[in-house]
Amino acid sequence: MSENVAIIGIGHSKFGTRKDVNLPELAWEAIKPALDSANVEQKDIDFYVVGNAGMWSSEAAVPSLMAEYADLAPKGSMRVEAACASGNAAIRVGYTAIKSGGADIVLVLGIEKMQESPNPTIIELIGRFGSYFWEFENFGLTFPGYYAMYGTAYMAKYGATEEDYAKVAVKNHYYGAKNPYAQFRKEIDIDTVLKSPYIAWPFKLFDCSPITDGAAAVILASEEFAKDVEDKIWILSQGVGTGTANLSRRDDFTTLPSASYAAEQAYKKAGIDLDAPWKYLDGANVHDCFTAPEIIAYEDCRFCKRGEGVELIREEQTYIGGRIPVNIDGGLKAKGHPIGATGVSQAVEAYKQLLSQAEKGRQADIKNGRWLTHNVGGTGHFTYVTIYGLEKR
Amino acid sequence: MSENVAIIGIGHSKFGTRKDVNLPELAWEAIKPALDSANVEQKDIDFYVVGNAGMWSSEAAVPSLMAEYADLAPKGSMRVEAACASGNAAIRVGYTAIKSGGADIVLVLGIEKMQESPNPTIIELIGRFGSYFWEFENFGLTFPGYYAMYGTAYMAKYGATEEDYAKVAVKNHYYGAKNPYAQFRKEIDIDTVLKSPYIAWPFKLFDCSPITDGAAAVILASEEFAKDVEDKIWILSQGVGTGTANLSRRDDFTTLPSASYAAEQAYKKAGIDLDAPWKYLDGANVHDCFTAPEIIAYEDCRFCKRGEGVELIREEQTYIGGRIPVNIDGGLKAKGHPIGATGVSQAVEAYKQLLSQAEKGRQADIKNGRWLTHNVGGTGHFTYVTIYGLEKR
Repeated sequence: MSENVAIIGIGHSKFGTRKDVNLPELAWEAIKPALDSANVEQKDIDFYVVGNAGMWSSEAAVPSLMAEYADLAPKGSMRVEAACASGNAAIRVGYTAIKSGGADIVLVLGIEKMQESPNPTIIELIGRFGSYFWEFENFGLTFPGYYAMYGTAYMAKYGATEEDYAKVAVKNHYYGAKNPYAQFRKEIDIDTVLKSPYIAWPFKLFDCSPITDGAAAVILASEEFAKDVEDKIWILSQGVGTGTANLSRRDDFTTLPSASYAAEQAYKKAGIDLDAPWKYLDGANVHDCFTAPEIIAYEDCRFCKRGEGVELIREEQTYIGGRIPVNIDGGLKAKGHPIGATGVSQAVEAYKQLLSQAEKGRQADIKNGRWLTHNVGGTGHFTYVTIYGLEKR
Repeated sequence: MSENVAIIGIGHSKFGTRKDVNLPELAWEAIKPALDSANVEQKDIDFYVVGNAGMWSSEAAVPSLMAEYADLAPKGSMRVEAACASGNAAIRVGYTAIKSGGADIVLVLGIEKMQESPNPTIIELIGRFGSYFWEFENFGLTFPGYYAMYGTAYMAKYGATEEDYAKVAVKNHYYGAKNPYAQFRKEIDIDTVLKSPYIAWPFKLFDCSPITDGAAAVILASEEFAKDVEDKIWILSQGVGTGTANLSRRDDFTTLPSASYAAEQAYKKAGIDLDAPWKYLDGANVHDCFTAPEIIAYEDCRFCKRGEGVELIREEQTYIGGRIPVNIDGGLKAKGHPIGATGVSQAVEAYKQLLSQAEKGRQADIKNGRWLTHNVGGTGHFTYVTIYGLEKR
């Protein structure tokens, strides 16, 4: 058994519309650099796990396709799914595989090709990650609509405005423009958001994360295997929560209980003070599938008190140099959101930031050596929060 | 961390056509008895994992549906998929969650509702667990066809006959008739099989496992938590293998390399002699999605030498009293094969057999205190082999 588990390699494809590659080719764009940067070969991999929501691809046996294309057979594998949190769920499976002593080196791949859906409408497929029969089929509720209820409730309770939400998009596009792997690399201003067409009030087109093809990979290793790595990135802790499927069973639309629970668990396990956890972190990636949920994530992750999340964005406290930089890779909003890849992409970003390897203009100051990732499936149907730590030699 | 992980409770729904219940209700039929027999409540569960292939159900957020219906929120969860090995893959995630120290009590649920497919044809959905675009869309290859290639190759190489294959079905129906949870509870004879219509030569209707709705659950616990349990069932070891997606890349159609690899791994980890491992076991459940693959499984699991699997069935060596009883719950063939539930159902059977709790006429002699389960996804795209052990107080 290995008390601690390290990330020793990372890989990331270009996110966007990737009709130029098939699923295994897209995977390889992330796997190859991950193997190279970890300085391992396929034969060294003991086990691999794929985070993939999968309804977007006609290919169901994704780990098996990888076995063939990336030469990973006969090593064991599985696919894990927790809606949009599938990537971080896959990291959890890799993490426990090593921590339990069952493996020394694990490849975790997150992947989704969403642009070539075999089913009639992408919106219907995404809807299936809610309480499908009740909410989607009966009421026609779609994901922009789901999160819009959170957006309006937060506006009603705390006085946030559409302009406040637009500021989240502006920040994330600002940093996305500096990330070569991002789907959208263009800065926008408040007006771009406010003048874009409504999707589900208060959300306009520029409040929404896009439909994305992409892959990300990390190589995890046991303490023993990571011992020669210079500056190590450890998985310090994880918190996991599940929420009700049916939104009518929820009391409050200004918080995701699964996220609050997961964050609390992650902080406790990492020995981080629950009163002001941001003081122990150098930055975070949160699940900004829409703009308002980024603000709610600030609160669920305790970067501020309830109701004060909107102040953080107004005061630019989640830019580099503020209280805690958030989504300075562009977030789901500008980097893109290939469902199964997102949680793994967040881990790649944590690794790069903690090792000060992020691209020019988007590197945080690393003082505490800790980075948080917050990955939500559905509207809080699942939340995975992981805290990564840097150990300098 | 817990060096060892025990099964402390089990639950099993009736398998069959279950249009009388929805997905959460079907799950509860397995979860309720599992909680009761483990003597735990929902609040005691630290984490839960669902094995579910899922394409058959329009409801994608199955663990979240369970959170609500079975009152499991806010505990963390995920869905895992490894085609028809999803159930045993879910057990692996639960096992490592506890072994890594991340949880004390884990609920593992396997579930599938296949009779109400939202998609046009079940056969197409199953086909997606192969190399879909190449084999299914180009050549129209379906799962009976896939495995028929194995069946014919085995006949050609070792002289097995259609009658030999029929004997597997006769055995499994013989035991299925004694299992109150089985889909088919009717004994059949060789003629029933031989006179049934061809599906894909050499397989006839009665060589094929059915389309099934069903759920099975186990409660896993850490050593500390299981310490007061009288006679304990431990997970002794697991082996996991992955095969190529594309059948044209396979050298030999009389063995599944992922299964041989997984079995070898499981035996080694459990300290079981690779030369005659059956001497250390009291019985096994193998993945008889069709009749021929049961015989190939005998060989991949080393219950006999290569080419001698057909002798085992001819000589009734896999009946109770023979070399090693196999699928004496009816197997996938007669008990039914609700994709995601099958691997968990096999664990339930291992537990019952080792504790001598199986129904009349289908209880093996328990001398060695070890039971093997062999759960295959696709045509060896994934194989999970788990060995369970009894520790008597």
